[in-house]
Amino acid sequence: MKVFVLRLGHRPTRDKRITTHVALTARAFGAEGFVLAGVHDEKVVKSIKKVCSIWGGSSFKVVTGVDPISYINEWRRGGGLVVHLTMYGIKVDEVIDVLRSSCRELLIVVGAEKVPNVIYELSDYNIAIGHQPHSEVGALAVFLDRLFNGRELYFIYSDAKIRIVPTEKGKRVVRIG
Amino acid sequence: MKVFVLRLGHRPTRDKRITTHVALTARAFGAEGFVLAGVHDEKVVKSIKKVCSIWGGSSFKVVTGVDPISYINEWRRGGGLVVHLTMYGIKVDEVIDVLRSSCRELLIVVGAEKVPNVIYELSDYNIAIGHQPHSEVGALAVFLDRLFNGRELYFIYSDAKIRIVPTEKGKRVVRIG
Repeated sequence: MKVFVLRLGHRPTRDKRITTHVALTARAFGAEGFVLAGVHDEKVVKSIKKVCSIWGGSSFKVVTGVDPISYINEWRRGGGLVVHLTMYGIKVDEVIDVLRSSCRELLIVVGAEKVPNVIYELSDYNIAIGHQPHSEVGALAVFLDRLFNGRELYFIYSDAKIRIVPTEKGKRVVRIG
Repeated sequence: MKVFVLRLGHRPTRDKRITTHVALTARAFGAEGFVLAGVHDEKVVKSIKKVCSIWGGSSFKVVTGVDPISYINEWRRGGGLVVHLTMYGIKVDEVIDVLRSSCRELLIVVGAEKVPNVIYELSDYNIAIGHQPHSEVGALAVFLDRLFNGRELYFIYSDAKIRIVPTEKGKRVVRIG
Protein backbone atom coordinates (compact mmCIF):
# COMPACT_ATOMS: atom_id res chain seq x y z
CA MET A 1 0.00 0.00 0.00
CA LYS A 2 1.27 3.47 -0.90
CA VAL A 3 0.88 5.79 2.08
CA PHE A 4 1.60 9.51 2.21
CA VAL A 5 1.16 11.84 5.18
CA LEU A 6 -0.09 15.41 4.70
CA ARG A 7 0.62 17.84 7.52
CA LEU A 8 -1.71 20.84 7.81
CA GLY A 9 -1.37 24.14 9.62
CA HIS A 10 2.40 24.19 10.14
CA ARG A 11 3.65 27.46 11.64
CA PRO A 12 7.42 27.72 11.23
CA THR A 13 7.71 29.87 14.34
CA ARG A 14 6.45 27.18 16.70
CA ASP A 15 5.79 23.86 14.97
CA LYS A 16 9.23 22.85 13.70
CA ARG A 17 9.82 20.07 16.17
CA ILE A 18 6.31 18.63 16.20
CA THR A 19 6.18 18.68 12.41
CA THR A 20 9.60 17.03 12.21
CA HIS A 21 8.35 14.33 14.58
CA VAL A 22 5.29 13.82 12.35
CA ALA A 23 7.52 13.44 9.30
CA LEU A 24 10.00 11.10 10.99
CA THR A 25 7.15 8.99 12.33
CA ALA A 26 5.72 8.79 8.82
CA ARG A 27 9.08 7.64 7.47
CA ALA A 28 9.85 5.21 10.30
CA PHE A 29 6.37 3.64 10.24
CA GLY A 30 6.22 2.80 6.57
CA ALA A 31 4.84 5.84 4.76
CA GLU A 32 6.43 6.62 1.41
CA GLY A 33 6.17 10.37 1.59
CA PHE A 34 5.54 13.47 3.66
CA VAL A 35 3.73 16.55 2.40
CA LEU A 36 3.81 19.89 4.19
CA ALA A 37 0.81 22.08 3.37
CA GLY A 38 0.98 25.80 2.80
CA VAL A 39 4.58 26.61 3.54
CA HIS A 40 8.14 25.58 2.88
CA ASP A 41 10.25 25.12 6.01
CA GLU A 42 13.87 24.50 5.18
CA LYS A 43 14.79 23.44 8.72
CA VAL A 44 12.14 20.71 8.78
CA VAL A 45 13.15 19.47 5.34
CA LYS A 46 16.82 19.43 6.35
CA SER A 47 16.09 17.38 9.47
CA ILE A 48 14.18 14.78 7.46
CA LYS A 49 16.84 14.60 4.73
CA LYS A 50 19.57 14.21 7.33
CA VAL A 51 17.80 11.22 8.86
CA CYS A 52 17.24 9.71 5.40
CA SER A 53 20.90 10.13 4.47
CA ILE A 54 22.07 8.23 7.56
CA TRP A 55 19.28 5.78 8.30
CA GLY A 56 18.12 5.23 4.75
CA GLY A 57 15.16 6.36 2.74
CA SER A 58 16.45 8.24 -0.26
CA SER A 59 13.17 7.16 -1.87
CA PHE A 60 11.15 8.87 0.87
CA LYS A 61 9.45 11.82 -0.79
CA VAL A 62 9.24 15.22 0.85
CA VAL A 63 7.02 17.86 -0.70
CA THR A 64 6.34 21.31 0.75
CA GLY A 65 4.19 24.34 0.10
CA VAL A 66 1.24 22.56 -1.52
CA ASP A 67 -2.32 23.76 -1.34
CA PRO A 68 -3.92 21.07 0.84
CA ILE A 69 -7.36 21.16 -0.77
CA SER A 70 -5.97 20.81 -4.29
CA TYR A 71 -3.65 18.06 -3.07
CA ILE A 72 -6.49 16.10 -1.45
CA ASN A 73 -8.72 16.51 -4.51
CA GLU A 74 -5.93 15.39 -6.80
CA TRP A 75 -5.23 12.35 -4.62
CA ARG A 76 -8.88 11.34 -4.73
CA ARG A 77 -9.16 11.91 -8.46
CA GLY A 78 -6.29 9.43 -8.85
CA GLY A 79 -8.35 6.79 -7.05
CA GLY A 80 -6.67 7.19 -3.65
CA LEU A 81 -8.42 7.35 -0.31
CA VAL A 82 -8.03 10.18 2.20
CA VAL A 83 -8.27 9.75 5.95
CA HIS A 84 -8.10 12.63 8.40
CA LEU A 85 -7.00 11.83 11.93
CA THR A 86 -9.11 13.78 14.41
CA MET A 87 -10.39 13.09 17.89
CA TYR A 88 -13.88 14.01 16.64
CA GLY A 89 -13.97 11.17 14.12
CA ILE A 90 -15.21 7.60 14.20
CA LYS A 91 -13.30 4.93 16.07
CA VAL A 92 -10.23 3.55 14.32
CA ASP A 93 -11.40 0.01 15.18
CA GLU A 94 -14.44 0.47 12.95
CA VAL A 95 -12.51 1.12 9.75
CA ILE A 96 -8.93 -0.09 10.01
CA ASP A 97 -9.65 -3.58 8.64
CA VAL A 98 -11.45 -2.21 5.60
CA LEU A 99 -8.65 0.25 4.92
CA ARG A 100 -5.98 -2.41 5.31
CA SER A 101 -7.65 -4.87 2.97
CA SER A 102 -9.11 -2.64 0.30
CA CYS A 103 -7.04 0.52 0.02
CA ARG A 104 -4.10 0.82 -2.35
CA GLU A 105 -3.23 4.52 -2.05
CA LEU A 106 -3.83 6.24 1.25
CA LEU A 107 -3.31 9.86 2.16
CA ILE A 108 -3.30 10.46 5.92
CA VAL A 109 -4.07 14.04 6.88
CA VAL A 110 -2.93 15.30 10.28
CA GLY A 111 -3.74 18.76 11.49
CA ALA A 112 -2.47 21.33 13.83
CA GLU A 113 -4.76 22.81 16.45
CA LYS A 114 -7.47 24.14 14.14
CA VAL A 115 -8.43 22.26 11.01
CA PRO A 116 -10.86 23.91 8.56
CA ASN A 117 -14.27 22.24 8.17
CA VAL A 118 -13.63 21.59 4.50
CA ILE A 119 -11.00 18.98 5.44
CA TYR A 120 -13.61 16.99 7.36
CA GLU A 121 -15.88 17.18 4.32
CA LEU A 122 -13.29 16.23 1.72
CA SER A 123 -11.86 13.27 3.66
CA ASP A 124 -13.27 9.82 2.98
CA TYR A 125 -12.91 9.02 6.67
CA ASN A 126 -12.41 11.15 9.76
CA ILE A 127 -10.82 8.77 12.21
CA ALA A 128 -10.18 9.13 15.93
CA ILE A 129 -7.28 7.53 17.77
CA GLY A 130 -9.21 7.94 20.97
CA HIS A 131 -11.54 10.85 21.66
CA GLN A 132 -9.17 12.70 23.96
CA PRO A 133 -6.83 15.56 23.12
CA HIS A 134 -3.27 14.29 22.80
CA SER A 135 -0.92 14.52 19.84
CA GLU A 136 -0.93 14.26 16.08
CA VAL A 137 2.39 12.41 16.38
CA GLY A 138 0.92 9.79 18.70
CA ALA A 139 -2.22 9.48 16.59
CA LEU A 140 -0.22 8.95 13.40
CA ALA A 141 2.07 6.38 15.02
CA VAL A 142 -0.80 4.30 16.39
CA PHE A 143 -2.75 4.56 13.14
CA LEU A 144 0.19 3.31 11.07
CA ASP A 145 1.00 0.60 13.60
CA ARG A 146 -2.59 -0.66 13.34
CA LEU A 147 -2.68 -0.26 9.56
CA PHE A 148 0.48 -2.32 9.03
CA ASN A 149 -0.28 -4.73 11.88
CA GLY A 150 3.05 -3.99 13.53
CA ARG A 151 5.08 -5.14 10.52
CA GLU A 152 6.40 -1.60 10.01
CA LEU A 153 8.70 -2.04 13.01
CA TYR A 154 10.66 -4.67 11.06
CA PHE A 155 11.06 -2.59 7.96
CA ILE A 156 14.66 -2.02 6.83
CA TYR A 157 15.85 0.67 4.44
CA SER A 158 18.28 -0.96 2.04
CA ASP A 159 20.23 2.27 1.59
CA ALA A 160 20.87 2.85 5.30
CA LYS A 161 24.45 3.67 6.26
CA ILE A 162 24.05 2.50 9.83
CA ARG A 163 21.80 0.01 11.52
CA ILE A 164 20.98 -0.70 15.14
CA VAL A 165 21.70 -4.07 16.68
CA PRO A 166 18.95 -4.45 19.29
CA THR A 167 20.49 -4.86 22.71
CA GLU A 168 19.36 -5.15 26.31
CA LYS A 169 21.61 -2.42 27.69
CA GLY A 170 23.37 0.41 25.94
CA LYS A 171 23.71 1.14 22.24
CA ARG A 172 25.03 -1.01 19.43
CA VAL A 173 25.25 0.31 15.90
CA VAL A 174 26.86 -1.22 12.83
CA ARG A 175 28.02 0.69 9.78
CA ILE A 176 26.83 -0.91 6.57
CA GLY A 177 27.30 1.76 3.95
CA MET B 1 -1.88 -1.75 36.12
CA LYS B 2 -0.50 1.50 37.49
CA VAL B 3 1.50 3.29 34.80
CA PHE B 4 3.51 6.47 35.14
CA VAL B 5 5.56 8.22 32.46
CA LEU B 6 8.88 9.88 33.30
CA ARG B 7 10.14 12.47 30.83
CA LEU B 8 13.90 13.09 30.79
CA GLY B 9 15.97 15.93 29.39
CA HIS B 10 13.29 18.58 29.07
CA ARG B 11 14.66 21.96 28.04
CA PRO B 12 12.06 24.67 28.64
CA THR B 13 13.46 26.81 25.84
CA ARG B 14 12.66 24.29 23.11
CA ASP B 15 10.81 21.23 24.40
CA LYS B 16 7.53 22.69 25.72
CA ARG B 17 5.33 21.38 22.95
CA ILE B 18 6.92 17.94 22.59
CA THR B 19 6.89 17.44 26.35
CA THR B 20 3.25 18.55 26.49
CA HIS B 21 2.44 16.02 23.77
CA VAL B 22 4.23 13.32 25.78
CA ALA B 23 2.19 14.20 28.87
CA LEU B 24 -1.14 14.37 27.02
CA THR B 25 -0.43 11.07 25.31
CA ALA B 26 0.32 9.55 28.70
CA ARG B 27 -3.00 10.83 30.06
CA ALA B 28 -5.07 9.94 26.99
CA PHE B 29 -3.59 6.43 26.71
CA GLY B 30 -4.23 5.29 30.24
CA ALA B 31 -1.23 6.33 32.33
CA GLU B 32 -2.02 7.59 35.82
CA GLY B 33 0.73 10.13 36.08
CA PHE B 34 3.39 12.20 34.36
CA VAL B 35 6.75 13.03 35.90
CA LEU B 36 9.06 15.71 34.52
CA ALA B 37 12.69 15.17 35.45
CA GLY B 38 15.08 17.90 36.47
CA VAL B 39 13.02 21.02 36.01
CA HIS B 40 9.68 22.62 36.71
CA ASP B 41 7.99 24.10 33.65
CA GLU B 42 4.87 26.01 34.58
CA LYS B 43 3.65 26.29 30.98
CA VAL B 44 3.74 22.54 30.47
CA VAL B 45 1.98 21.91 33.78
CA LYS B 46 -0.69 24.51 32.94
CA SER B 47 -1.38 22.89 29.57
CA ILE B 48 -1.86 19.48 31.17
CA LYS B 49 -4.05 20.83 33.97
CA LYS B 50 -6.20 22.71 31.48
CA VAL B 51 -6.87 19.53 29.52
CA CYS B 52 -7.64 17.65 32.74
CA SER B 53 -10.08 20.34 33.89
CA ILE B 54 -12.08 20.14 30.65
CA TRP B 55 -11.67 16.55 29.48
CA GLY B 56 -11.38 14.93 32.91
CA GLY B 57 -8.53 13.52 34.87
CA SER B 58 -8.32 15.38 38.16
CA SER B 59 -6.74 12.17 39.47
CA PHE B 60 -3.96 12.35 36.85
CA LYS B 61 -0.78 13.12 38.77
CA VAL B 62 1.75 15.64 37.54
CA VAL B 63 5.10 15.85 39.28
CA THR B 64 8.01 18.05 38.22
CA GLY B 65 11.60 18.71 39.15
CA VAL B 66 12.47 15.22 40.37
CA ASP B 67 15.91 13.68 40.18
CA PRO B 68 15.35 10.92 37.62
CA ILE B 69 17.84 8.45 39.07
CA SER B 70 16.43 8.72 42.57
CA TYR B 71 12.92 8.45 41.15
CA ILE B 72 13.75 5.29 39.17
CA ASN B 73 15.50 3.72 42.15
CA GLU B 74 12.58 4.53 44.42
CA TRP B 75 10.12 3.06 41.92
CA ARG B 76 12.10 -0.17 41.74
CA ARG B 77 12.50 -0.39 45.51
CA GLY B 78 8.70 -0.26 45.71
CA GLY B 79 8.50 -3.35 43.53
CA GLY B 80 7.69 -1.55 40.28
CA LEU B 81 9.26 -2.21 36.90
CA VAL B 82 11.02 0.40 34.78
CA VAL B 83 11.08 0.38 30.99
CA HIS B 84 13.01 2.86 28.92
CA LEU B 85 11.84 3.47 25.37
CA THR B 86 14.82 3.73 23.04
CA MET B 87 15.46 2.79 19.45
CA TYR B 88 18.58 0.92 20.65
CA GLY B 89 16.58 -1.50 22.81
CA ILE B 90 15.06 -4.91 22.24
CA LYS B 91 11.94 -5.32 20.14
CA VAL B 92 8.68 -4.44 21.86
CA ASP B 93 7.15 -7.69 20.53
CA GLU B 94 9.60 -9.68 22.66
CA VAL B 95 8.48 -8.28 26.00
CA ILE B 96 5.05 -6.71 25.77
CA ASP B 97 3.13 -9.88 26.67
CA VAL B 98 5.24 -10.47 29.76
CA LEU B 99 4.84 -6.87 30.87
CA ARG B 100 1.09 -6.93 30.30
CA SER B 101 0.54 -10.12 32.23
CA SER B 102 2.99 -9.82 35.09
CA CYS B 103 3.61 -6.16 35.84
CA ARG B 104 1.54 -4.23 38.35
CA GLU B 105 3.45 -0.95 38.54
CA LEU B 106 5.21 0.29 35.44
CA LEU B 107 7.33 3.38 34.99
CA ILE B 108 7.92 4.26 31.34
CA VAL B 109 10.96 6.45 30.79
CA VAL B 110 11.15 8.54 27.62
CA GLY B 111 14.14 10.64 26.80
CA ALA B 112 15.05 13.65 24.82
CA GLU B 113 17.87 13.45 22.31
CA LYS B 114 20.65 12.30 24.63
CA VAL B 115 19.94 9.92 27.45
CA PRO B 116 22.72 9.17 29.97
CA ASN B 117 24.06 5.60 30.00
CA VAL B 118 22.97 5.13 33.59
CA ILE B 119 19.31 5.14 32.47
CA TYR B 120 20.00 2.15 30.21
CA GLU B 121 21.63 0.39 33.15
CA LEU B 122 18.95 1.15 35.72
CA SER B 123 15.99 0.21 33.53
CA ASP B 124 14.63 -3.33 33.71
CA TYR B 125 14.00 -3.22 29.98
CA ASN B 126 15.24 -0.98 27.19
CA ILE B 127 12.56 -1.32 24.55
CA ALA B 128 12.51 -0.18 20.94
CA ILE B 129 9.38 0.84 19.06
CA GLY B 130 11.24 0.22 15.85
CA HIS B 131 14.95 0.82 15.39
CA GLN B 132 14.58 4.04 13.45
CA PRO B 133 14.77 7.60 14.74
CA HIS B 134 11.29 9.07 15.05
CA SER B 135 9.59 10.49 18.14
CA GLU B 136 9.24 9.83 21.84
CA VAL B 137 5.58 10.79 21.46
CA GLY B 138 4.98 8.17 18.79
CA ALA B 139 6.96 5.56 20.70
CA LEU B 140 4.99 6.17 23.89
CA ALA B 141 1.64 6.06 22.08
CA VAL B 142 2.39 2.76 20.34
CA PHE B 143 3.85 1.24 23.50
CA LEU B 144 0.74 2.10 25.54
CA ASP B 145 -1.57 0.98 22.74
CA ARG B 146 0.18 -2.39 22.69
CA LEU B 147 0.33 -2.62 26.48
CA PHE B 148 -3.39 -2.01 26.91
CA ASN B 149 -4.35 -3.94 23.76
CA GLY B 150 -6.20 -0.94 22.37
CA ARG B 151 -8.60 -0.75 25.31
CA GLU B 152 -7.19 2.64 26.31
CA LEU B 153 -9.02 4.26 23.39
CA TYR B 154 -12.33 3.47 25.10
CA PHE B 155 -11.35 4.87 28.45
CA ILE B 156 -13.66 7.61 29.80
CA TYR B 157 -12.81 10.07 32.55
CA SER B 158 -15.81 10.24 34.85
CA ASP B 159 -15.06 13.85 35.77
CA ALA B 160 -14.97 15.16 32.19
CA LYS B 161 -16.99 18.30 31.52
CA ILE B 162 -17.32 17.61 27.81
CA ARG B 163 -17.28 14.48 25.74
CA ILE B 164 -17.00 13.83 22.03
CA VAL B 165 -19.74 12.06 20.13
CA PRO B 166 -17.87 10.23 17.36
CA THR B 167 -19.12 11.39 13.99
CA GLU B 168 -18.31 10.83 10.33
CA LYS B 169 -18.04 14.51 9.40
CA GLY B 170 -17.51 17.56 11.56
CA LYS B 171 -17.41 17.86 15.34
CA ARG B 172 -19.97 16.86 17.93
CA VAL B 173 -19.39 17.56 21.60
CA VAL B 174 -21.78 17.19 24.53
CA ARG B 175 -21.46 18.97 27.85
CA ILE B 176 -21.80 16.63 30.75
CA GLY B 177 -20.48 18.56 33.72
